[in-house]
Amino acid sequence: MAVYTEVSDEALAGFLAEFDIGGLVAFRGIAEGVENSNFSLRTTGGDYILTLYEKRVDPQDLPWFLGLMEHLARRGISCPLPVAGRDGAALRRLSGRHAAITTFLPGVWPRRPSRAHCAAVGEALAGLHLAGQDFSPVRPNALGPASWPALLARSAAQADAVHPGLGAELEAALARILADWPAEGSLPGGHIHADLFPDNVFFLEGRLSGLIDFYFAATDLLAYDLAVCLNAWCFEADFSLNVTKARALLTAYDQRRELSAAERAALPVLCRGAAIRFLLTRLFDWLNTPADAYVTRKDPIDYLRRLRFHLAAADVQAYGF
Amino acid sequence: MAVYTEVSDEALAGFLAEFDIGGLVAFRGIAEGVENSNFSLRTTGGDYILTLYEKRVDPQDLPWFLGLMEHLARRGISCPLPVAGRDGAALRRLSGRHAAITTFLPGVWPRRPSRAHCAAVGEALAGLHLAGQDFSPVRPNALGPASWPALLARSAAQADAVHPGLGAELEAALARILADWPAEGSLPGGHIHADLFPDNVFFLEGRLSGLIDFYFAATDLLAYDLAVCLNAWCFEADFSLNVTKARALLTAYDQRRELSAAERAALPVLCRGAAIRFLLTRLFDWLNTPADAYVTRKDPIDYLRRLRFHLAAADVQAYGF
Repeated sequence: MAVYTEVSDEALAGFLAEFDIGGLVAFRGIAEGVENSNFSLRTTGGDYILTLYEKRVDPQDLPWFLGLMEHLARRGISCPLPVAGRDGAALRRLSGRHAAITTFLPGVWPRRPSRAHCAAVGEALAGLHLAGQDFSPVRPNALGPASWPALLARSAAQADAVHPGLGAELEAALARILADWPAEGSLPGGHIHADLFPDNVFFLEGRLSGLIDFYFAATDLLAYDLAVCLNAWCFEADFSLNVTKARALLTAYDQRRELSAAERAALPVLCRGAAIRFLLTRLFDWLNTPADAYVTRKDPIDYLRRLRFHLAAADVQAYGF
Repeated sequence: MAVYTEVSDEALAGFLAEFDIGGLVAFRGIAEGVENSNFSLRTTGGDYILTLYEKRVDPQDLPWFLGLMEHLARRGISCPLPVAGRDGAALRRLSGRHAAITTFLPGVWPRRPSRAHCAAVGEALAGLHLAGQDFSPVRPNALGPASWPALLARSAAQADAVHPGLGAELEAALARILADWPAEGSLPGGHIHADLFPDNVFFLEGRLSGLIDFYFAATDLLAYDLAVCLNAWCFEADFSLNVTKARALLTAYDQRRELSAAERAALPVLCRGAAIRFLLTRLFDWLNTPADAYVTRKDPIDYLRRLRFHLAAADVQAYGF
């Protein structure tokens, strides 16, 4: 679910009066998303998404997120465009939260990604990276490699209760990943989405129609973003890599933004890093969400299986590239 | 949250191909509602709601619910109109569930009901009752008075853990309510909504624009539906009755469908019954939903306070009428 904060009629009416987007027609909570409260908002002027930023988003990061989305949208990326109020500000307050209205993107996220979806995502990710090049503000990746030891430490003591031997396996894997991690400046950096899972990518009639949810975006290695996508899009239900999908994703990316030799060589360690990053946050949530809660906990072990694949991958050829 | 069942791309595409409503444009889960999975569906033909019926709805009741909605919509009630597939059937199967597409209603449900909202609801409820008169199929009210003793028995042993003395208080109240309940045939019956809470009523620019969620509708005493609305719309945050709102609701109803002397006299016991019905289902959910679940449990004690008010109400004048 993703409505944590209720918005009263009066508050909504007052908020909309600060904009030039017409009168209210419909307003419904959106089930997707877990971090913020999202509402589908229709006015006489069109369709929008209203987001109320909840506790897990640092308010200090919001101008960067909205600035990046606006920058990308102006450069032709189909992503939510923050809508400014009459006073020119998009980031506002509503019902005790920071809040913003963005444009609505048509499309449906793919529940079962195909090879064609993977190719489209690779191409769109490269386009996103290129479009972000001249956005100068920087946001260090709070969930980058420097954060992983502390993330593991939060769950290490209970990890074996989730899966026997998990704690030791993760300690060893993380030590190896950090030792192999590309040195600063050795790979091209830029602004990455960092969470481009299928539910953040819309398709319409087989074509990619939009990218959403930039609230994990950060400044980091571009090829790491590709590694996140490989993890998120190219594994089958049995956790085996679909090499055809991986090749499609990588090839489409490479055709739009050519991967350097160093990026290709680093792909296995970047994939290991991406796998352990999602494994660690899911493990923490798994240990700290009651088993009988209505929210679906994402099984961290799905990512242990991906991690093991990446640890065994010798080079980029393991990904069909 | 209200998405319990995931719908794959292929399943959705196949489902839509059974209809004549155009191609898919957008598909998002809706946060509101707790019984079924609801999706906002946009096609090139317009806006719709897709509902997948979950476990708490008896599949045998679905044709009746959809038939009632269609009947009411055809008689000018602004309620969801089930959309038939090319084969003429509205009730279908999707992703292992019974499913139906209905029309989308504009509007926003009032978070803080005003006197004007209450008057509009009273008028609309009377209109609903009148429009339902020539719908001949009958659905006995599964949550009517005959069900309350068993409902109480399911929670009685644990009731005192929720509120000291609650079990005995409810036993006494229920005995009194059932003893006073109007004899069969003594009050006008018909089809009632039975759950017309604010989140099931949409308003647009101050006017009532739609009634939704007919999945508790049943054939029962018409004035009992009014008693449900009095409980749901006319109490303040401190659980005191707002007599101005109650008078507005009752007067607007009565102007559209005149209440008989017997209905007026029965109003206090009907209100007691409505209060104990919601108290009992909320008490059961309260006792059977973990306190740390993400779903908001509705405090049953809110309805104990209403029940006590109604038990003390001597006649319809207590409701400002």
